[in-house]
Amino acid sequence: MEYESLLKQIENDNIHGASYLIEVGAEGALALLKEGEISKLPEFAERLMKAQPSMAPILNFGAFLLAQYKDKREDGEKLRESIISYVDNFRKSRKKSLENAENLIENGDIVVTHSFSSSVLEVLKLAREKGKKFEVLCTESRPQREGLILAQRLSGMGIKTYLTTDMGIFSLIEGRASSLLFGVDAFLKSGIVNKVGTAPMAKYAGNRGIPVFFVADSFKILPEEVMGYFRLRSGKSEEILEKPPENLEIVNPYFDVTPYSVVRGIAIETGVTGPLEFLEKAFGVNTNP
Amino acid sequence: MEYESLLKQIENDNIHGASYLIEVGAEGALALLKEGEISKLPEFAERLMKAQPSMAPILNFGAFLLAQYKDKREDGEKLRESIISYVDNFRKSRKKSLENAENLIENGDIVVTHSFSSSVLEVLKLAREKGKKFEVLCTESRPQREGLILAQRLSGMGIKTYLTTDMGIFSLIEGRASSLLFGVDAFLKSGIVNKVGTAPMAKYAGNRGIPVFFVADSFKILPEEVMGYFRLRSGKSEEILEKPPENLEIVNPYFDVTPYSVVRGIAIETGVTGPLEFLEKAFGVNTNP
Repeated sequence: MEYESLLKQIENDNIHGASYLIEVGAEGALALLKEGEISKLPEFAERLMKAQPSMAPILNFGAFLLAQYKDKREDGEKLRESIISYVDNFRKSRKKSLENAENLIENGDIVVTHSFSSSVLEVLKLAREKGKKFEVLCTESRPQREGLILAQRLSGMGIKTYLTTDMGIFSLIEGRASSLLFGVDAFLKSGIVNKVGTAPMAKYAGNRGIPVFFVADSFKILPEEVMGYFRLRSGKSEEILEKPPENLEIVNPYFDVTPYSVVRGIAIETGVTGPLEFLEKAFGVNTNP
Repeated sequence: MEYESLLKQIENDNIHGASYLIEVGAEGALALLKEGEISKLPEFAERLMKAQPSMAPILNFGAFLLAQYKDKREDGEKLRESIISYVDNFRKSRKKSLENAENLIENGDIVVTHSFSSSVLEVLKLAREKGKKFEVLCTESRPQREGLILAQRLSGMGIKTYLTTDMGIFSLIEGRASSLLFGVDAFLKSGIVNKVGTAPMAKYAGNRGIPVFFVADSFKILPEEVMGYFRLRSGKSEEILEKPPENLEIVNPYFDVTPYSVVRGIAIETGVTGPLEFLEKAFGVNTNP
């Protein structure tokens, strides 16, 4: 049962982003079909969604598998084709969204980001490959400090990079930043889910007229009907303090939600859209007064 | 030369606050007088100021010693009396400011603070001793994480305490806080110097109508004539990343400056004053239109 081990891999993963894990998930679903276990597809999809309840693309892929099973359970070959085409579409959308975001980087820019986003890394790499000259300001991003990895990767590409504490970033935003660029964990109707710290940074910049951009493909949009599976994960308390004494409670949030009102633009596969246009397209929000 | 070893102690101190170090400094100055080295007092004062260039009370005490030397160099006994009375006044002012700040804590409050401030700790201890019931939300406060110590001390007093990451505090401010209470490193005309993170937290709360308070005695007010000695210290880059690679620059600020415009009140020895009244009294700023 190859699909079982692939599922376990996803369940135990704490490192990779959705763009990697969706490939593993698709591989698992295809293995399941190949092993003639079509009837287990709904259970597989449910487990996939519960394994990574903060990752919108995984939830959407699970919901897609459930819907496909309803439609095509009699035809394994058609199901297989749908899955392959879904993942192909996902890859193409991701690539296009990164290219669109690259247009946001200009010569001489000083770009602020937060934590580690493979999308942001790719966008900056593309801009660098086009010969654009810019600098990047990174946060260390507690508690896991993924920002160190991003800063090392960027500086390794020859990009002048600055790394500061999470609280240190605010005066850099105020004094130096041209723009802020973040990845996305999920687009909700109420705001954009990303690593904790994104929302205060975005609000701080928004209040000062510094443009805030997000980059993601539309597979990160979480429709209302999938929201039941969605959960904002928190971290373990040991990441902040081992064995807290009585009367001391550790609060270790991993995510926060940035309101669309402080966002200048969202780069998805169809281009860079303003927040109102995005809300209308993604959630059917009527933004005409 | 006892004064020399006391001076060295201050020069090498990275842990204690000004309220402790000023006692050591005074002890040093008195030892110097006792050893008959009055002529070395100006040099002593200058070294004291350079040893802790971010601590307003130390700078003020150094400036006081320089002025006293000018006036009373012929009379060691008078000098001695002045120093003793200065430190006595300092202690009393500090005590009174803490008592005044205690009035800001009310039953049922959820108080946000940041990093470690011995003044904030004392204020909350006083409120606890008066039988007030309240909770405290603490940050870990990178890079040195002094917030852990405050959280442990508070919870040890039986106060229900929450500890979160620096970026995690913003949603707690938004969702739960009654007020914010910070210590002070220095009052400048342009704003209040405190641990990095204080300014974004205060601005965030101020924008949401949550009252922001600072507690300090007036010995933390830095007059213009002492500003030449003042310097905002930064931390070592190793505190964030050992051996940064090429193209990667570490920015490790220890302090930031909160504008008076987001402050609701400042508890000093004479009472709790609003920011405009404080600016007028401390710096002669004319705030009448």
